Amino acid sequence: MSLHFLGNSVTLENVFIASSGTVCGPLEYLGPLGSCFDKSIQDYHYGEKSFEKAERKMLRDALDICLKRERLKYHDVDLYLGSDLLNQITSVNYLAREIMKPFIGVYGACSGFALSLALGSLLVEAGFVDRVMTMVSSHNASAERQYRYPVEYGVQKKATTTFTATGAVATLLTSQKQLVKVEAITLGRVIDYGQTDANDMGRAMAPAAFDTLMNHFQDLKRSFHDYDLVVTGDLSMYGHQILKEMLQRQKIDVVRYNDCGCMLYDLSHQPVFQGGSGCACSALVTMGSLYPQLKDKKLKRILVVSTGALLSPMMSAQKESIPCIAHAISLEAVE
Amino acid sequence: MSLHFLGNSVTLENVFIASSGTVCGPLEYLGPLGSCFDKSIQDYHYGEKSFEKAERKMLRDALDICLKRERLKYHDVDLYLGSDLLNQITSVNYLAREIMKPFIGVYGACSGFALSLALGSLLVEAGFVDRVMTMVSSHNASAERQYRYPVEYGVQKKATTTFTATGAVATLLTSQKQLVKVEAITLGRVIDYGQTDANDMGRAMAPAAFDTLMNHFQDLKRSFHDYDLVVTGDLSMYGHQILKEMLQRQKIDVVRYNDCGCMLYDLSHQPVFQGGSGCACSALVTMGSLYPQLKDKKLKRILVVSTGALLSPMMSAQKESIPCIAHAISLEAVE
Repeated sequence: MSLHFLGNSVTLENVFIASSGTVCGPLEYLGPLGSCFDKSIQDYHYGEKSFEKAERKMLRDALDICLKRERLKYHDVDLYLGSDLLNQITSVNYLAREIMKPFIGVYGACSGFALSLALGSLLVEAGFVDRVMTMVSSHNASAERQYRYPVEYGVQKKATTTFTATGAVATLLTSQKQLVKVEAITLGRVIDYGQTDANDMGRAMAPAAFDTLMNHFQDLKRSFHDYDLVVTGDLSMYGHQILKEMLQRQKIDVVRYNDCGCMLYDLSHQPVFQGGSGCACSALVTMGSLYPQLKDKKLKRILVVSTGALLSPMMSAQKESIPCIAHAISLEAVE
Repeated sequence: MSLHFLGNSVTLENVFIASSGTVCGPLEYLGPLGSCFDKSIQDYHYGEKSFEKAERKMLRDALDICLKRERLKYHDVDLYLGSDLLNQITSVNYLAREIMKPFIGVYGACSGFALSLALGSLLVEAGFVDRVMTMVSSHNASAERQYRYPVEYGVQKKATTTFTATGAVATLLTSQKQLVKVEAITLGRVIDYGQTDANDMGRAMAPAAFDTLMNHFQDLKRSFHDYDLVVTGDLSMYGHQILKEMLQRQKIDVVRYNDCGCMLYDLSHQPVFQGGSGCACSALVTMGSLYPQLKDKKLKRILVVSTGALLSPMMSAQKESIPCIAHAISLEAVE
């Protein structure tokens, strides 16, 4: 079997998910998937003096839960990969001080979940390492003041706004056979359709998700019919609809497709505007809800396309449009 | 031959450097290595409306020079990896819009050069891709306002300050035999000795460089004597001296050691305080000056230990100390 990429994609044989840890915030707990998560916090400060420190504490919890399940300690993992939304990937970098193992920080905005899983999977598949821990987090209040305005300003939100999910997820990859494998990945390209509004991320990211999906299907000669479920990361209601239309215009039969930003919350009752976004959005839905269904064989194969808007607030202030990216991972129940 | 990591390190057999492109700023051009670089800019704005846009333009130039040397186009490269200092890795993300190939953004602060080369090398060694382009940049004025104060404030500098190098470097890795190979890498761990002063980076980063060097030597059973030259990224005068003392206290024989931050400038005459820092610092010295010497067999084997201070300005404002990391790559002239 060749390890070489086909276009932007590669199929994998020896990468499995050994364990996960999921921690969510108050609104995520009250959403339809609330009971799926290992732990929830009821207060955005989580006993810490700042939102950033609260986010890091959630991430530490997720990591500890993930390791405890497998009775492992920090030093039993060969390599740590992490991503979050803060300048400059703050939560994972500062948490990594406690870990004392090789660490790689990646940045893909809200696509960080699939990006870190994809990269970790490549390193396990190649045989460089046996165990890789991937970690992602986002926190509504820390992200709001990073990208938009401090929540205390009480700025009125636009109808197109998405709501950054509060949560942290750790996922342990291993070369040892487990119930679920990472079966294929597709790396994304940076796509920019000229959207400049930081309050309409779904619309900005839909073309990147479209590009990655089309590449995935073309590279591996697949379609929606090869999956029990295809989810995008956090396009939410507007973006999700746009992606569907883009695909249908290409005569793609869109079946069993949903968006994590629409699945994480009850959009008709919860105050999350168009739905969820943030690194934690696709990570919570995938590892909290879909991964257990793969373990139980209720799902056979799923495709997770995490989307990320790579904007820098500095460049938005300089009137630049928003670069976006999407990375895809295919997860499969092992026979 | 096993691909597996030995501790934090791995030796590689099939990764070569095919080409490079180096662009420097005005002070780097006037420094002792000025004639080594492919191109220099004489004005920090480089015809653009902002420092950030100028940095991106330099990066595009470096990429174009690197590709042109090999008569390649953007689409001939399988994968792009990039890193810079800006929130949120701005220069590479925004440039990647023009590239339309799979892209991975990594963040390691000033260690971004070695981190992206290390990661790219792993993916080439494994056979996933044949050609990987790594790109890093930093710009004195864009970094100053990102991490400290806008240059226009004219803040008085502390004696311990380093000077962010202005430059951009593209390095093309390939699986095809060339004159110089990436022979080994050591991934860093996040180390924090409790330093809180964002104007004394050398002191903060020295322990991370020490950790990576010690791991490298222990993992691969090597010493300074196995290299014609060992360079750290950007510890500059203070940090460079601290590292030397830390090593000597462990009875390590420190020979043929220098720091890129001290090599890039004439420290007795140029206004760069303790010396250079920034992603571009170790990248310019390595690819501008050392890589040609490896090609000409004037150097046989060198170790580059790029250091990075992973501070977030937000966390510094919250009185947190500075997490640091160092990644090492060993480059060797091919027989």
